[in-house]
Amino acid sequence: MEKQQVPEAVISRLPLYLRVLEQLRNDGFEVVNSGQLATLLHSSPGQIRKDLTYFGHFGKRGEGYRIAELADNVRQIIGLDRVWNAAVIGVGSLGSAVINYPGFEPAKFRIVAAFDREPEIIGTVVNGIHVQDISELPETVVRSSISIGIVTVPGEYAQNVAGLLIKAGIEAILNYAPIQLRTPEHVKVANIDPVLSLQSMTYHLKNTRSDRKIPSL
Amino acid sequence: MEKQQVPEAVISRLPLYLRVLEQLRNDGFEVVNSGQLATLLHSSPGQIRKDLTYFGHFGKRGEGYRIAELADNVRQIIGLDRVWNAAVIGVGSLGSAVINYPGFEPAKFRIVAAFDREPEIIGTVVNGIHVQDISELPETVVRSSISIGIVTVPGEYAQNVAGLLIKAGIEAILNYAPIQLRTPEHVKVANIDPVLSLQSMTYHLKNTRSDRKIPSL
Repeated sequence: MEKQQVPEAVISRLPLYLRVLEQLRNDGFEVVNSGQLATLLHSSPGQIRKDLTYFGHFGKRGEGYRIAELADNVRQIIGLDRVWNAAVIGVGSLGSAVINYPGFEPAKFRIVAAFDREPEIIGTVVNGIHVQDISELPETVVRSSISIGIVTVPGEYAQNVAGLLIKAGIEAILNYAPIQLRTPEHVKVANIDPVLSLQSMTYHLKNTRSDRKIPSL
Repeated sequence: MEKQQVPEAVISRLPLYLRVLEQLRNDGFEVVNSGQLATLLHSSPGQIRKDLTYFGHFGKRGEGYRIAELADNVRQIIGLDRVWNAAVIGVGSLGSAVINYPGFEPAKFRIVAAFDREPEIIGTVVNGIHVQDISELPETVVRSSISIGIVTVPGEYAQNVAGLLIKAGIEAILNYAPIQLRTPEHVKVANIDPVLSLQSMTYHLKNTRSDRKIPSL
């Protein structure tokens, strides 16, 4: 397997593949074919088959893919066979909710540090995490092997916080602030922003909704 | 302008273009060129120019794009020149936070209804919204011209709720539940899921992080 040659577009689809494979496994399935995966993912069987050829030969022709084996391989390729440490910056109500979110730990993301600049927040404990002064960030990032920064400060401070994270060596930022962060090429940013997500659907609504019939009650 | 011919991949990039254009405008800029946009968007000037040709001729050669005009056009193309009504299904702590989120209204998304199935939640008022019984959903969707369903129920109920929404004529679902919803082709789903977003970055971390030097403190 030559991992380096997998195109970015394929990589971006892998987390969803993994999620669907895990759901199928939980539902008791052992084998799935590309047509079934395509239906679940709103994709095409050809696209699925092409994407999965990057990861070796999991399916026998006509027999489909072994779900457990394929899931393990996808997990390994995208780096989910280990734990990743993250820090939350900004411990207001959003930051606290993120620190308390129960979905990270099972997915092997562990929040190990939290930072704020407000004296009344520094020193408090949220879900077992002791909130530190933002000035301690560079040292803690190195000492605690933190790879991911989670930005939950208000929009007007987010760019500065991103700058601090990048200076500390962070290359992956999960950004909850409603702004487009400016980062160097080697730093990846994923935005959690419900408005951006809603805007990704309105083109479709605008162009199809009007000519569909409203169902009778 | 022939809107129907814009490829899906271009459409998906437009909300980010719009966000960057609005930030530039707020920063006092009037004109931007494709190279500057490419830097801000981690894209290439050629990609930007190609995408924007779908929307007419906004830039004179060598002079860049007029930001206000281009933003207005992008807004119109993706359907943000009008208000879209949304309903929240599941009014626990997550649903309440979504109803209280201040970012929707300025972006022309208006939450006009909320539903739950728990007797102790039905009838409560959250941010001015009277929580209704889930059984009233189909009628309210039609009466209040609701186009978007926001799913904030726990994962195990999300597929059922999606089914109710689709039956009521909804074609756009913002899904906060950590599962991949199964929907017909004409229904768009956008997932708000921090784990999926984190997973989109770990491949990159795995393949570049180890050979970068940790900065000295």
